[in-house]
Amino acid sequence: MPGTASGLFLTFEGGDGSGKSTQSALLTEWLSQQGRTVVHAREPGGTELGLELREIILHRRGYIAPRAEALIYAADRAHNVATVVRPALERGDIVIQDRYLDSSVAYQGAGRVLEPAEVRDVSLWATEHLLPDLTILLDLDIETGRARLDDARTRYDRLEAEAAEFHHRVREAYLALAAAEQGRFLVLDATEPVETLAERIRARVSDLLA
Amino acid sequence: MPGTASGLFLTFEGGDGSGKSTQSALLTEWLSQQGRTVVHAREPGGTELGLELREIILHRRGYIAPRAEALIYAADRAHNVATVVRPALERGDIVIQDRYLDSSVAYQGAGRVLEPAEVRDVSLWATEHLLPDLTILLDLDIETGRARLDDARTRYDRLEAEAAEFHHRVREAYLALAAAEQGRFLVLDATEPVETLAERIRARVSDLLA
Repeated sequence: MPGTASGLFLTFEGGDGSGKSTQSALLTEWLSQQGRTVVHAREPGGTELGLELREIILHRRGYIAPRAEALIYAADRAHNVATVVRPALERGDIVIQDRYLDSSVAYQGAGRVLEPAEVRDVSLWATEHLLPDLTILLDLDIETGRARLDDARTRYDRLEAEAAEFHHRVREAYLALAAAEQGRFLVLDATEPVETLAERIRARVSDLLA
Repeated sequence: MPGTASGLFLTFEGGDGSGKSTQSALLTEWLSQQGRTVVHAREPGGTELGLELREIILHRRGYIAPRAEALIYAADRAHNVATVVRPALERGDIVIQDRYLDSSVAYQGAGRVLEPAEVRDVSLWATEHLLPDLTILLDLDIETGRARLDDARTRYDRLEAEAAEFHHRVREAYLALAAAEQGRFLVLDATEPVETLAERIRARVSDLLA
């Protein structure tokens, strides 16, 4: 696997409301039952430093230059990988993470004014080229995603408040990333029943563990 | 000039205690007397966002992964260039800045564990390749610099508390940068009298304005 002697690095991607938290919790439970040690990580804000950076990105008032925003996300990622993900992989643990560099490419790159390839390069520098062994993309049409969010939350953060057009571009960017790296991605229709999705994820992870 | 239609971008570099603040203030005063509009900028912490990032870098307790630190500096720089430096240069103003990308290369690259060329590349991405028209390096042997600081301050921040060996490597890195880009750098012996240094800086800036 890339950059580590053992362990397994699994990431969940998809828009808000696509079920990443539910599925990563179910997968964590299943792997734990198999006797595996699972480290659950997240970005942004998966470390103490990351929480401070996340606060700046998501809830700060006022303009943030697009490159500054991308670099703050990359700093959060660099610290998370160096202090949480790599040490866990080196112990032979399984790391399950909600959002990783594909989020940056999809949200910052395709969604904003930056070149996706450049945003990816910054993330690869930040992480010393750590790519996941498997990335599960929970693909959801925008209208369903918004409806789920409306049910679950009363407050929207800065990114969630962006227009629906932005979320359409993010979805297209995610699908393009999956198409370009089919070996790394498992793309699932997030409108399928929770247990069906969980079963398909378990099947793929079983193959990786075998 | 690189990346801008008009204006002039001047940066001061050198270790702590080398006289950057004094010389940039004198140059600002002199240029103002010539009727030029001068914008005084600084990194880190030259913007509101930058102040928050600077607080994290300089005064936060606990370990920060080297790549995370470099990326936070780059984020500060990206925001400063996008919101302060470029708008000023586009108005035709003169921007005088204490510390810029050479600081990152010298402190993060040569001083720490990162590749100088990679740190520079991150900064160039952050700023859309904005290089100064002139960089004044106030070169000072380490012992003199520390003695000046001891006189002036009672509190040391995280970087200043690093060992003298670190500052030696920074100085060597600065001199190597100046040797590699002689056209952009003016290297001065910071132990010369304040007025002598100011005169030499004015002479060089006059040439640029002519």
